[in-house]
Amino acid sequence: MTTTVNEPTRNGVDTATLFATLDAVKAAPEAAQFQFRAHNQWLSGTHSRGTIHDFYGVGEERAHEHTFHFDADHPAVLVGRDNGPTPVEYVLHALAACLTAGLANIAAARRIRLTEVRSTVCGDIDLTGILGLNPDVRNGYRNITVRFTVKGDAPAEQLREIVEQSRARSAVYDIITNHVPVTIEIDTD
Amino acid sequence: MTTTVNEPTRNGVDTATLFATLDAVKAAPEAAQFQFRAHNQWLSGTHSRGTIHDFYGVGEERAHEHTFHFDADHPAVLVGRDNGPTPVEYVLHALAACLTAGLANIAAARRIRLTEVRSTVCGDIDLTGILGLNPDVRNGYRNITVRFTVKGDAPAEQLREIVEQSRARSAVYDIITNHVPVTIEIDTD
Repeated sequence: MTTTVNEPTRNGVDTATLFATLDAVKAAPEAAQFQFRAHNQWLSGTHSRGTIHDFYGVGEERAHEHTFHFDADHPAVLVGRDNGPTPVEYVLHALAACLTAGLANIAAARRIRLTEVRSTVCGDIDLTGILGLNPDVRNGYRNITVRFTVKGDAPAEQLREIVEQSRARSAVYDIITNHVPVTIEIDTD
Repeated sequence: MTTTVNEPTRNGVDTATLFATLDAVKAAPEAAQFQFRAHNQWLSGTHSRGTIHDFYGVGEERAHEHTFHFDADHPAVLVGRDNGPTPVEYVLHALAACLTAGLANIAAARRIRLTEVRSTVCGDIDLTGILGLNPDVRNGYRNITVRFTVKGDAPAEQLREIVEQSRARSAVYDIITNHVPVTIEIDTD
């Protein structure tokens, strides 16, 4: 296990800034109120384009350094034109990315150097639900499995503990495994 | 309201194929068993790259026509390098895209021609949860709001009914508003 001190970054994480940010939020918890946003424009059929740019946090309106665009569609087998992944695949991507970011931060805080983190997230879904063919089948995933490969300069047990801590503090894991209220407003003018 | 018959596509939706697919799944529901997947590779800090390509459905292994790559990261204010949206923003994008795809399909099935569908999805989150600073605050979004602008050749009430039906059949809406069990497996070899 690495025990070097005065190391500005570990796993690419700026740990000094990470701890300073934690201290700043402890002192002023209102800074932790964020609103994230995604904009979407329908193009044709099941094809739409999402835009991610603006958000609110630490008391003011903010924006990413770049504007990100992402197309979504259905594959031909689901009567789309395959111009992008399906919406449900983006959810799996979000889960992998969230757990992985947490893993790197937590490992850095614990002075463990990671050498490799890979994952595959699989979601099983019975489309008779969304097709309206079986009222007993839900619309979403029946279950999701995440398979991680994690390597670093720590015993296997410590690497597993980092994954467990990342799960325990993952926003996307919480969103998927628990209930988030969603309100839909419609303007037809 | 459009009542043209023998129209191969409406809203860019191939309605003949859509109805044929529904009939095929009614006859053989096992075709509706799908598994979607996302692969992820950690790059540095909170930056990772997702890959979406392979999936299973209609009885066999399949793949998208292209391989899609998506970077995720945290912005500088959250101690990242802003190489991509945050994982929680991808969830909002997925919700907008899912509701929008459903909207186009349902409108086509109801012979309503859409002229514009735009949406903004906002998610409110208190980051004292994932920062471990307040055990009473959840890790994920407190609430999500979707604001749709929908225009087409139907009365406002019918356009609203299409959004409601899309919500009632949305996989991502179900994933976010209900519980999906997630299993995490770890390989440290």
